[in-house]
Amino acid sequence: MYDASVPVFVHFLRSLSVILKKAEVHCTAKKIDPSVILSARLFPDMFPLTRQVQIASDAAKGAGARLTGMAVPSWADEERSFEELQARIARTIAFLSDLKAEQFDGAETREISLKAGGRELNFKGFAYLETWAKPNFYFHVTTAYAILRHNGIELGKPDFLAGGQ
Amino acid sequence: MYDASVPVFVHFLRSLSVILKKAEVHCTAKKIDPSVILSARLFPDMFPLTRQVQIASDAAKGAGARLTGMAVPSWADEERSFEELQARIARTIAFLSDLKAEQFDGAETREISLKAGGRELNFKGFAYLETWAKPNFYFHVTTAYAILRHNGIELGKPDFLAGGQ
Repeated sequence: MYDASVPVFVHFLRSLSVILKKAEVHCTAKKIDPSVILSARLFPDMFPLTRQVQIASDAAKGAGARLTGMAVPSWADEERSFEELQARIARTIAFLSDLKAEQFDGAETREISLKAGGRELNFKGFAYLETWAKPNFYFHVTTAYAILRHNGIELGKPDFLAGGQ
Repeated sequence: MYDASVPVFVHFLRSLSVILKKAEVHCTAKKIDPSVILSARLFPDMFPLTRQVQIASDAAKGAGARLTGMAVPSWADEERSFEELQARIARTIAFLSDLKAEQFDGAETREISLKAGGRELNFKGFAYLETWAKPNFYFHVTTAYAILRHNGIELGKPDFLAGGQ
């Protein structure tokens, strides 16, 4: 459960960091106000880029905490710049990196409850990781990528897959 | 490895099926030529909806085959309608559903080689599943969802998460 969560989240958080760095460089080169890209969305009732990054962070830290029986750390969603989003990603990676594999012993069958959309959801740890936490995480990382591609930032799927390598 | 692959892919292929069904219903209701939506893309050099669905199918069947030591079935990418995409998804689910958990014994350490972007990539089975096959799969399912949302089809994240329930 450790191997299927912590290093996987860290890998793709590093990808997200690279993707956002390329977006920031693009803004500088093209004299685009970064707030235009940070608030970009694919449809009026979808979340903007900044919120996609925050939710990806939440999915990753939530999984690390819940699978090890910790309270989920609550972080204010106040990021307003690429630099602050990078700090959010770094903080998420640091939180996950502090977790030890032993803390995940028995995580497959741990009872996990969470509230989403006003409903209480109950999972065993394995189903939580595989049908909730990771899919949510990838959903928001990919949507961040899609917002940036739609706005002309030059990215390719290798940026998503490479884990910052 | 079976539990972390076959039922997970099937769950989200069912979500993709529901999402595409809603898109088809939307086209009928709004008198939109389905080919407009099937060929929609988020940026000129990104793949259109049809190709996103085909690649999601390829990621899922590729994982099922490679992790069990089978040749990856090669299917022509000829879908031209929502109905044909639904058949592609159904065929992918049927292929995965025929695999037995025992066939995944030792899959974590199975040597997996594949060609991508002109390079040969080599993985152990676990890393292949967690850093290649599933991320690729979610990337293309989410991009299909994003294309549809961007075109005004009324979907929500529950459609992505629910596995067709």
